[in-house]
Amino acid sequence: MSKRGNLFVVSGFSGSGKGTVMKQLCKNEQYALSISCTSRAPRDGETNGKEYYFISHEEFVKRQAEGYFLESAIYVNKGYGTPLGFVEENLAAGKDVILEIEMQGALQVKKTYPDTILIFITPPSAAELRRRLTARGTETKELIEKRLKRAVEEGVYMDQYDYIIVNDDLDVCVKELDALMQSTHHAVKFNKEFVAAIKDDLKTL
Amino acid sequence: MSKRGNLFVVSGFSGSGKGTVMKQLCKNEQYALSISCTSRAPRDGETNGKEYYFISHEEFVKRQAEGYFLESAIYVNKGYGTPLGFVEENLAAGKDVILEIEMQGALQVKKTYPDTILIFITPPSAAELRRRLTARGTETKELIEKRLKRAVEEGVYMDQYDYIIVNDDLDVCVKELDALMQSTHHAVKFNKEFVAAIKDDLKTL
Repeated sequence: MSKRGNLFVVSGFSGSGKGTVMKQLCKNEQYALSISCTSRAPRDGETNGKEYYFISHEEFVKRQAEGYFLESAIYVNKGYGTPLGFVEENLAAGKDVILEIEMQGALQVKKTYPDTILIFITPPSAAELRRRLTARGTETKELIEKRLKRAVEEGVYMDQYDYIIVNDDLDVCVKELDALMQSTHHAVKFNKEFVAAIKDDLKTL
Repeated sequence: MSKRGNLFVVSGFSGSGKGTVMKQLCKNEQYALSISCTSRAPRDGETNGKEYYFISHEEFVKRQAEGYFLESAIYVNKGYGTPLGFVEENLAAGKDVILEIEMQGALQVKKTYPDTILIFITPPSAAELRRRLTARGTETKELIEKRLKRAVEEGVYMDQYDYIIVNDDLDVCVKELDALMQSTHHAVKFNKEFVAAIKDDLKTL
C-alpha cells in the first residue's frame, strides 16, 4: 500500500467543534497538522508556533513572492499562508498532513493538488450550531450573528467537499474521521506503483 | 448521514482469499451479499441459494429478457446474472449490498450505476498468489496454471477499480474492508439531502 502520506483539508463552521476534533485526532502520530503563517497580531492567549507562526507583513509578502506557501491569501490587509515545506516533508515521511483552513483556501489547494481530500465537519443541524455558539456564553450577540452569517456564506461550498462528517459525539466523530482518512490510502490512484508491480510480477509466473 | 445503502463490487484473483473475507465480513448484518443466478449445473457440494440460484437456461434467458438482472452475461453457453430486486430492496433498507463478481461484470455495473464502489482484493504479491494456489494441494498443475493465466488477464482491469485491499492477514483485511466501506457513507455525493437541509436551515437562523 502507499507509503506516502495523503493531503487533507479539514474545514467546518465556527461552532462545529472542529478544533477539539483536530486536537484529539492529532494525538495519533500518523497525522501532522499544518500551522499557518499570519501577519496579523497574536490575540490574547495565542502562542507563536501553536495557533500560528506570527510574522511581519513585510516578511509575509517576501515569503509569498518566494513561493514559500502552498496556498496563501490576504484578508483585510493581513496575510495567511500554509508553509509548503512542512507539507512536502511530512507527506514524504508517510504522514497524513492536515490543513485546517477555510473553504476558499480549500478549493484553491484542491485546484493545485487534485489529490487533496476535502473533509467538512458539521454539527448535526443548524439549530445545534446556534445552540453551541450561544452556549459558550463568552461571546456577544453580535459576534454570534456574524458567525452564523458566515456559516450561511460558507455553506454554499459544502457540495464541493469530498466528505462530510457530523460532529455530534466527539469520540465517534474522531473515530469516523480517522477511519475515513486511513481508508483513502486504499484508493487505486494512490497505489499505482503497487498495482503496476503486481501486474508485472504476474507475467513472470 | 445517508440512510440508503451503498452498492459495492468486490473482485479478486482466484487465490486472493476473497471468499473467506466475504464470509467473515457478512457476519455483520449491515452487509447483504448478492447471490447470482446461473444456468450452469451445480458442482459437488454446491447448494441452491448458497453459491448460486441454479435455474434452467430457458428460465435464465426469460429473466434476462424481462429485465430481472442488474447485470448478466453468458460464458460458454451458461448464463450468470445478478438479481436486481435483491439489490434494490436491500439498498432501500439501508444495507450495503455486495456483488462478488468478476471484472468485466464489475465494469458493466459501474457504467450503469456510476456510484458503485469497486474494490479489488489482492494477495500481497504474485509469488504469494502462486503459493496459495499451490498450497491448496487439491488442484492439478493444469488448473493452477489456468488460474494464474486468468489472473494475468484480470490484472489488466485493476486500475479501473476504486480501491485495492491487500489480503495478507484475514482479520486485518476484513477490518480494513469494513472501515473502507463504512467510510464511503460520508461522501458528500451520498449526502446531498442532508447538505441541502443544513444549508436551508442556516438561512432560517
